[in-house]
Amino acid sequence: MRKYAADRFRHLFNRSLLLLRHRHHHNHHPFPYSSSVSSLSPFSRSRFLSSTPFSMASDSPFPVTAQNINPKVLKCEYAVRGEVVTLAQNLQKDLQANPGSHPFDEILYCNIGNPQSLGQQPITFFREVLALCDHPAILDKSETQGLFSTDAIQRAWQIVDQIPGRATGAYSHSQGVKGLRDTIAAGIEERDGFPANPDDIFMTDGASPAVHNMMQLLIRSENDGILCPIPQYPLYSASIALHGGCLVPYYLDEATGWGLEIPELKKQLEAAKSKGINVRALVVINPGNPTGQVLGEANQRDIVEFCKQEGLVLLADEVYQENVYVPEKKFHSFKKVSRSMGYGENDITLVSFQSVSKGYHGECGKRGGYMEVTGFSAEVREQIYKVASVNLCSNISGQILASLVMSPPKVGDESYDSFMAEKENILASLARRAKVSLPRK
Amino acid sequence: MRKYAADRFRHLFNRSLLLLRHRHHHNHHPFPYSSSVSSLSPFSRSRFLSSTPFSMASDSPFPVTAQNINPKVLKCEYAVRGEVVTLAQNLQKDLQANPGSHPFDEILYCNIGNPQSLGQQPITFFREVLALCDHPAILDKSETQGLFSTDAIQRAWQIVDQIPGRATGAYSHSQGVKGLRDTIAAGIEERDGFPANPDDIFMTDGASPAVHNMMQLLIRSENDGILCPIPQYPLYSASIALHGGCLVPYYLDEATGWGLEIPELKKQLEAAKSKGINVRALVVINPGNPTGQVLGEANQRDIVEFCKQEGLVLLADEVYQENVYVPEKKFHSFKKVSRSMGYGENDITLVSFQSVSKGYHGECGKRGGYMEVTGFSAEVREQIYKVASVNLCSNISGQILASLVMSPPKVGDESYDSFMAEKENILASLARRAKVSLPRK
Repeated sequence: MRKYAADRFRHLFNRSLLLLRHRHHHNHHPFPYSSSVSSLSPFSRSRFLSSTPFSMASDSPFPVTAQNINPKVLKCEYAVRGEVVTLAQNLQKDLQANPGSHPFDEILYCNIGNPQSLGQQPITFFREVLALCDHPAILDKSETQGLFSTDAIQRAWQIVDQIPGRATGAYSHSQGVKGLRDTIAAGIEERDGFPANPDDIFMTDGASPAVHNMMQLLIRSENDGILCPIPQYPLYSASIALHGGCLVPYYLDEATGWGLEIPELKKQLEAAKSKGINVRALVVINPGNPTGQVLGEANQRDIVEFCKQEGLVLLADEVYQENVYVPEKKFHSFKKVSRSMGYGENDITLVSFQSVSKGYHGECGKRGGYMEVTGFSAEVREQIYKVASVNLCSNISGQILASLVMSPPKVGDESYDSFMAEKENILASLARRAKVSLPRK
Repeated sequence: MRKYAADRFRHLFNRSLLLLRHRHHHNHHPFPYSSSVSSLSPFSRSRFLSSTPFSMASDSPFPVTAQNINPKVLKCEYAVRGEVVTLAQNLQKDLQANPGSHPFDEILYCNIGNPQSLGQQPITFFREVLALCDHPAILDKSETQGLFSTDAIQRAWQIVDQIPGRATGAYSHSQGVKGLRDTIAAGIEERDGFPANPDDIFMTDGASPAVHNMMQLLIRSENDGILCPIPQYPLYSASIALHGGCLVPYYLDEATGWGLEIPELKKQLEAAKSKGINVRALVVINPGNPTGQVLGEANQRDIVEFCKQEGLVLLADEVYQENVYVPEKKFHSFKKVSRSMGYGENDITLVSFQSVSKGYHGECGKRGGYMEVTGFSAEVREQIYKVASVNLCSNISGQILASLVMSPPKVGDESYDSFMAEKENILASLARRAKVSLPRK
């Protein structure tokens, strides 16, 4: 079957437009797209900012028009669900209506890491526990023993017992079920060798709402800047735009394997300051998205020191912590690195983002994740809590899954061998594909 | 067992502070609380708006302080997880440390409608389907027949077949799985007797993110106003504050059973306009939260006419559509009412919010919901879609549950009788408690 990958890079989505253009240029296929920027051109910034009442702004029969909505919304771009996907969907409609109308007959959506949509199977143990927690009434039925592994049943009992009233359909504490946060904190401690506090964990529907929470907290106006890597995961640019801040770019160096160089950070910070930007935070994505780069510990120490000296919040996107495919590299959390430097709660302001969507599990649709929030004053933490509270809580299945990801089956558990086999099989498959070289033209 | 209800009103949360004060005043219990407003008083608005670099703003060892965070976050109040809950949690700690230290020994959290935390059982059919979709590997096992009803198994097959690649762990379309939106649209059509378009459905993690999406779209500055009922559900005031808009209050009339009077709407709209506020939308909560009021159809027609004439978006919070406890009243959706007036897609801009957290199901922790978005131009819809896309999609279990709520078992299905018995039992219990009169002092 001839396949057409809208984006053959695994995560390098920002480059995919280039890829399509390239093909277009060489193959003369009539792909009718324009850049995200030019598609906004009819609406100049000055029109956005006008306070003309909407009823006078347009001949539209609708009271809401592109001329009178929040200009931050218009300004926001989100490539992974943007233009290329729309183009792909249009091509797919073409193919359905007129088979053979293109020199390919299938489209693979690689615009976002969504492994289960491409056939990756979920981890059996995780799904067993989720199913049992969704329907605890079957936990003590005899048929259940035949359908589910013993340790999944035990884990499900343990989890429902941690939920007040065993109510898996109740809103939880705004930060997530306390018992599940205990499990996550224990998992972080085991990973890092340093203490973790369940009260520092804020469970979220995937990592995206956690990132928004932080941007909402830190950004006061377009004079507040957030240092972000380029290439980046477009959530950051989208969230900064939606919250009306300023993205201060720093460039990863492709020549050194997408290295993160401190002089580059300093240069960009100074350039932003000279323009009157208050730089509030540094986003580091490690392992990198879309680059796949894994930071060395010495580099991480320099980054921590830089944030400390410059008074920056370190926003550590660590959602790919399981996705390291070379034996000579190892993931170290920024929390571990900063604690190993002797920096405690009062020395460095650090937020670590984790998600159930990535790693070997790839449970994107479950929308589970958390942020570990350290180095904020009590009064600011109250504000973070308040913003989390406005949406009440993240979904309980996602919370449960986040606890499972941070506490998978252990040696001796009935599911351990099959769990490890499933996990290693998935990671081996991802590693194999990560090493596929793309032909250079 | 002596019980102390932090809020004895079912939903009248805004009044609960008064209730506590009242008890305090009469009983001389030393409840140490202050109002949400006064707790913010150390931070004056002018300090919020200063652009002083954070490093100079404070002696705090932390770079982020209450003085240099987003002032909109500080301004936001969210009573249902705010002061009264904090007070209750402190009282609970007191009780654990010193049993008998208060004239009650248990606290019931009624600060938010969270029925399963208070013992309401989930609907069996819904949970069966969710469990099977979480672990589709058991769908064709023989033991499954003994544990799950036949129609739950059938429904789960139908749902996993609607999900591309049967991948219940994949990100869906940003608006939600198309097949599930088809089911919801069919449910709306059956409820209203008017067509519904699955492309108008945006599935969300509960109704709250849908409300935020709309506020984010409509609010450009503090000169943009949203008409909200008082008393209200505090999500609205919180979301308007977070997005930097202006809440334009209109007052429900307790004397007429919390009636929504058009002259009051007009008066408040004119007052806001005279202050230079662009009023963008009218929030109507029907059935009312916290009032329980159910609007009559004639009243609803007047509201639709008012929105049309004034060019307002009608934001219809219809999450309590199943919670009508008097036989002489009936829920009518605003979509049905406006269509029955002959107003179509181009005549009225209307958003209806629905949630799996309310009704008889009360599945708060599952975070499922949707908004039905009608009467927006194609270009504005694109913007709504883009904002929804930035968080990728709502959680799939919540999506599935939203489809089940809008398409429960039907006559002839194996689960129908037990489903109806569970549903009627819950609604009867809610109705009984809704009719409890509180003693007036």
